[in-house]
Parts: sequence; C-alpha cells; structure tokens
Amino acid sequence: MSALATRARLGALVEEGLQGLEYPASPEELYKPIRYTLESGGKRIRPVLLLGVYDWFTGGEGDLSLALPAALAVEVFHNFTLLHDDVMDRSTLRRGRQTVWDRWGTNTAILSGDAMTILAYEILERLPADRLAGVLRRFNRLAMGVCQGQQSDMDFEENDMVLLSHYMEMVGHKTADLIEGAVRIGAYMAGADEELEATIGLSAREMGIAFQLQDDWLDVYGDTETFGKQVGDDIADNKKTYLSILAREDGDAAVQNDLTRAMSNVALERDDKVRLIMGIYEKLDIRAKTVVAIEEHLSRSAEQLARAEELVGREATVFREVLASLSGRTV
Amino acid sequence: MSALATRARLGALVEEGLQGLEYPASPEELYKPIRYTLESGGKRIRPVLLLGVYDWFTGGEGDLSLALPAALAVEVFHNFTLLHDDVMDRSTLRRGRQTVWDRWGTNTAILSGDAMTILAYEILERLPADRLAGVLRRFNRLAMGVCQGQQSDMDFEENDMVLLSHYMEMVGHKTADLIEGAVRIGAYMAGADEELEATIGLSAREMGIAFQLQDDWLDVYGDTETFGKQVGDDIADNKKTYLSILAREDGDAAVQNDLTRAMSNVALERDDKVRLIMGIYEKLDIRAKTVVAIEEHLSRSAEQLARAEELVGREATVFREVLASLSGRTV
Repeated sequence: MSALATRARLGALVEEGLQGLEYPASPEELYKPIRYTLESGGKRIRPVLLLGVYDWFTGGEGDLSLALPAALAVEVFHNFTLLHDDVMDRSTLRRGRQTVWDRWGTNTAILSGDAMTILAYEILERLPADRLAGVLRRFNRLAMGVCQGQQSDMDFEENDMVLLSHYMEMVGHKTADLIEGAVRIGAYMAGADEELEATIGLSAREMGIAFQLQDDWLDVYGDTETFGKQVGDDIADNKKTYLSILAREDGDAAVQNDLTRAMSNVALERDDKVRLIMGIYEKLDIRAKTVVAIEEHLSRSAEQLARAEELVGREATVFREVLASLSGRTV
Repeated sequence: MSALATRARLGALVEEGLQGLEYPASPEELYKPIRYTLESGGKRIRPVLLLGVYDWFTGGEGDLSLALPAALAVEVFHNFTLLHDDVMDRSTLRRGRQTVWDRWGTNTAILSGDAMTILAYEILERLPADRLAGVLRRFNRLAMGVCQGQQSDMDFEENDMVLLSHYMEMVGHKTADLIEGAVRIGAYMAGADEELEATIGLSAREMGIAFQLQDDWLDVYGDTETFGKQVGDDIADNKKTYLSILAREDGDAAVQNDLTRAMSNVALERDDKVRLIMGIYEKLDIRAKTVVAIEEHLSRSAEQLARAEELVGREATVFREVLASLSGRTV
C-alpha cells in the first residue's frame, strides 16, 4: 500500500483540472462567466472528498486521473447551482466577488448556467467506459436532488408553517444529496461494494447536514471576520433556517406572537430587528440547542466513518481531516 | 426486411413515452411545469426523425424501444430550451398556452428548466450500456451547440453589424445542431458507420437551416391563420432575421438609412412600421431571394438524403416525408 494523497495534493489536482478545462473561443459571453465562476475559488470540499474516498479505498494504488473527471464534474455542477441560485435570490456577492447575473445580466447568467450543466456532463465523457453508466446514474441522482431541495427552499419563502421536519428534508436534498453523491461516486469508481458505498455515503450525508446547520448558526453567532460576512442577514431577511423554525416550534403562543410581529414590522430598523429576534432566541436557548443538533449529526457522521474504515481496514485520512475541520466551526 | 414504421406510429411512440415519464410526488412546483411543457404538444420532429433514421437503417428489424430513450431525451431537452428561451425573451405565449415563467414565476421557470435538463440525462440511463458513451457524446455536443446558438442570438440584439454569415452560423448552432444531433444519434444507435452518420446528419442539418429561414419568412409573409400568429412581429421587434440582415446587406446607403430610421422611430405605430419595412423588402426583392436561399438548403438536404439512401440501399420514408412537408411551407 502506498501513502494516501494529502488533502492539499487532492485540492491541487482539482484546481489544475478546473484550470485545464478548455472552452470554445466563441461565443465569448457564454464561456467568460463559466471561467469566472470556476476560478473564484471555494473550498472544493466535494471533489476532494470524492478523490479522497477513491484514494482511501484503493489504498493509494488507484489512478487518481481515472476518478478526476467525476470530481471535476461534481464541482462544475455545484458551481452551476450557485450561479443559478444567485439569479433566483438576486444575490450580488459570492465569495467576495460580483455575481454573474449582476455583472453580465440575468439572461447571460441563466444561459451560462445551462451551459455549465452540460459542461459537467461533457467532462463525464472522459470516464472509463465500464464506469460511465454507474457514475451517470449517481450523478443524475445528486443533480436532481439539489433541484428538489432548491425548489423546497423557494417554497418555504411563501409558507409560514414550515416544520423542522420539512426543513431537514429540504437540507437533505439541497446540501446532503450533493455531498453524499460525490462520495458515493468516489467509492463506486474505486470498486467498493454497495454496503461500503452506502456507509461512507451516509457519513458524508450527515456531514453535509451538520455543515448546513452550522451555516445557519454562523449567520447569527459567527465571528464577522472569520465568517466573511455580516451576521444576522438571515434574520433580517426572514429566512427560514434551523434556528428560526426551532424558535417557532419551541416558543409558546406569546413568543410566536412576538416573532411574527418582529418579522412583519417593516418600520423596525435592520439591527433592531436582529437584536430583538436574537433576544427571543436567547430566551429559548436556540444557540445551544442548535449546537446540540450539529454535534449529533457530526457524531453520526463519525460513527459511519468508523464503520466504513473497519470495512476497508484503513483510516480515511482526508475524509477524517475534513470532518475534523467542521467540528471547530461553532465554538 | 419488415415494413418501416410510419411517421404516425413513431409520433405515437414518442407521445406515449413522454406520457409515461414518472416524476417524484414532491416538490410539486418543480414537476408541474415540466409536465405542462411536455404535454403541450409540438410536432415532435426531432425524436420522430431520430427513430425514423434508426428504423430505416435497421430495415424495420431494429427494436425501437432501444432507441426510444434517446428520442425522448432529445425532445425533453428541446422543450427545456424553449422553456428557458421564453424566460429570456419574456414571451408569454407558446403553442397557444401561457408560458411557464408567466404562469409560475421566473424562479420556478429557471429551476424546472434545470430539472428538465437533468431529466433528459436521466432518460439516457435507460440506453443499452454499449451505446451509452456514444450517445452521451453526441447528446452533449448538440446540447452545447444549442446554448452557443442562443448566446449568439442574444448577442445579436445589441449588435447592429450582424452579417449574414454570422446569422447563418447562429442558426447552424441554435437550430441545426439539435436536429443533426438527433439524426446522428438515430444512425449511431442503429450501428451506422461514420460516413453514413455524417451524410444523413448533414441532410438533417440543411433541413434544419431551411426550417429556420422559413420561420423567418413566415413571420412576414405567412398566412396568419395557418401560421398561428400575427405576422410582422419580428419586424415590429427589430429582430435580426435572415430577411432583415439581407435587406441591410443588399440595400445601398439610402436604403440602410431608411431602415435605421424606421427601426429607431418609436413614434411609428406598429402596423405602419411593419408596412414601411415590408415596402423596403419589396424594393429589394427580399421575399423571393429568401425563398431561393430556402430552396437551396432544401435541395442540399435532398441531395445528401439521396446519397445516404444509396449507401443503405433503401428509401428513408419518414425522413422523406418530413422533408417533403417542409417544401410546401413558403408558397
């Protein structure tokens, strides 16, 4: 058995692969936004996990270049979803840069997003023929899952009766399907059997859910500097999050009334509204309760990971490293 | 050799296949617009040609159900492009019905379009494993071509220097890539060699170009009743069409001046503007010149078709029928 590749090495492979993508010269307006989106960074967690799982299962003996196209396709698809999400949410900033629709217009953003989806499927053409059907099936499943999650998320905007169970189902699609799918593809490419693929996939799934709940938590309690954006935006926008839904479910009639009033009072200044609602959260202990939920998903992820490692007989170092890095986010 | 399937039979297979597509129960808002779009009819020319070519090459002995998934994927993808095009053009009517964005909102239209693309790729999963890679490659090529064509078409809106050569290149992508790709997939599925695939593909390509030029012509000279929409809309909207670009290229400085004035005069009533510009077309004989160009593409299509039939040794009855039906459109 060779040494497993480090996270840094896998990340570099992904960056190189993305930079190596070739685009037709014209029409420029179609490909410029794609290149812009892909070069704007991000942590590349999904493709790194895909490659990490492949490398782990093959004991460092597998040819990473065989799995790389699948990793790149996942990252391109993920970035496409962000591009179209920004159009739908009218967000003007993403990773510290102007969003595509804000810079090039909505129509170009819609269309270059469409082209990006197709680009992801084009990259899959490079896979070994005997793995193509299996990867395509898994890829389609994760892609459709993300769309389902995004639709539910949009539906929530018009619905004041969203329960925590609905919210968790939405997160299960929008965030967890993608990360589980990526990891399943890595396992499948390496020749893992269904039990192992499902186990490591479930570990990734729980990690993805924890990650989303952390994002919700960080929007309220995160350190502005580390988090990279102003806190309280979700509250100011009346966004349905784990915290806001939990507050509604846990609060008695009086608290629910207070929440509704604060949310619908347009005369309230942004910061006053955020303070007011954070006060309600404090009374209901939402901060700590959310951390408990996050810990639960992280520990389920660790449990499944340990099971998977036992099945394989070696430590999944990169997966472990990514999981460990999440544990420090909500302190 | 069995008798070849009729166009009606192939059309029925496609309708049945589309009706048989299964969608998850939720989120309803994601799948309702997809079902709505797919049940709104259309001539199903692309999937019928795909199946027709497959049937022709296999002499009626091929199992149509093997090629059907590819035909359905092409039709689903084509309808997705219409759905997103309507968002970008803000069109409110399509095939006599309200467009998706107008009915359900822009965000739902963007997202259900995205899901429709993925649905097309999901349908490809049903293909025989040994054909999957080849179909995926051809499918991606046609899909990306359509996006390129749509981007060029959008670019033309801001550009007053569009030449006929640019326009023909745009049509080559936006319309011809899809129909050529569909036919190539049919030939490939049937086991045709590269020469035959390219020949029948080229015939389809020329047919597609003729079809688009006819649409441009019909918008000005079509019979309102048969055509199903008001004539002169392209002129009223200053749309770049084969006719408008030809007029600009063929006219002397004075005519170009007249055209520019008519197009930019916002005080002009719609019908007066249409009449004025049609007058310029008449002076330049644009009507007849466009018919000549259409005939040229139709006859090139017929030529390539005859070559392909010679290679196969039998008549491509459905293809012939579709081609013949086009010949009567501009009379």
